[in-house]
Amino acid sequence: MKKVLCVMSDGFEELEAVGTIALLRRAGITVDVCALHGDQACGRFQICISDLMPFEDADKTDYDALFLPGGPHYATLQADETVKQTIMTFAKQNKLICAICAAPTILGKMGLLKDKHYTCFTSMNEDFGGTYVNAYTAQDGNIITGRSAAAVIDFAFVIIESLLGKEKADEVKKSIYYDK
Amino acid sequence: MKKVLCVMSDGFEELEAVGTIALLRRAGITVDVCALHGDQACGRFQICISDLMPFEDADKTDYDALFLPGGPHYATLQADETVKQTIMTFAKQNKLICAICAAPTILGKMGLLKDKHYTCFTSMNEDFGGTYVNAYTAQDGNIITGRSAAAVIDFAFVIIESLLGKEKADEVKKSIYYDK
Repeated sequence: MKKVLCVMSDGFEELEAVGTIALLRRAGITVDVCALHGDQACGRFQICISDLMPFEDADKTDYDALFLPGGPHYATLQADETVKQTIMTFAKQNKLICAICAAPTILGKMGLLKDKHYTCFTSMNEDFGGTYVNAYTAQDGNIITGRSAAAVIDFAFVIIESLLGKEKADEVKKSIYYDK
Repeated sequence: MKKVLCVMSDGFEELEAVGTIALLRRAGITVDVCALHGDQACGRFQICISDLMPFEDADKTDYDALFLPGGPHYATLQADETVKQTIMTFAKQNKLICAICAAPTILGKMGLLKDKHYTCFTSMNEDFGGTYVNAYTAQDGNIITGRSAAAVIDFAFVIIESLLGKEKADEVKKSIYYDK
């Protein structure tokens, strides 16, 4: 059973967060969705998700992948020492780190996109020492990135394929009549 | 200002519901998201949305469009007299009715897909007296339908274009680097 850790704070982007979580769970992946503070988080479009796991309660060593949704909450995430320590823990163990839209810039500022092919919300791209890919998704080793909310379905399927293989990803795609 | 009424019950599909709501709100459309019972609803993939408007408190005459997400909650929606009355009110006034995945079958069972081009979750299609379109989305007059969770982004943009015009829809597409 594969396990993914997701952390959100107020201002997460709902399509990116909920879309990814729903598709991963549809594929049978366990996703522990954590609130950075308390047990609730409200998205940038006023959708509030309750009954979340407090991030401090998560055993960060117990997961196969980390998922960081985009949205304005990225500034809160990148200012949080526990979030940064968690990202470094996944990076050092060469575990999957999946980030979409604004969230890959957190990885960039930490030096984790150096010499990597990656994407992120185009207008937020900076010189992170890697190669920007102007596409919905990019994967380079353990780093999976998505460009924007429009990329969420493709992004989730790259994660599913990485964790469970192409056959399972294709099965889930077929089950929802995914056209690509 | 355009206003959309959305109603959900436990078992809604999260990507379809939250994805559509987030994109409509991104376009500047007011979306009142209602819980059929109480002020919370938990999706089929265990994502619980809180702080919802109780459906009984919504003035059903005050909206430009109705949005019905898919997911197993469709059985609860179609058994509810207030939901059915609301759908009929929108239909009689020729207002937009937008339904995705399992939800168009509610319209079909009410006779609202007769002589219409529509789509729905393919394996749930029946003889509703209309023409099934095997595509992500279909629009026929005031009825907008989406096939499955995979269609959510296209589906939301059809609604945005219907309510606010092509220029606004294109602007939002561009703002999230939508590729199609």
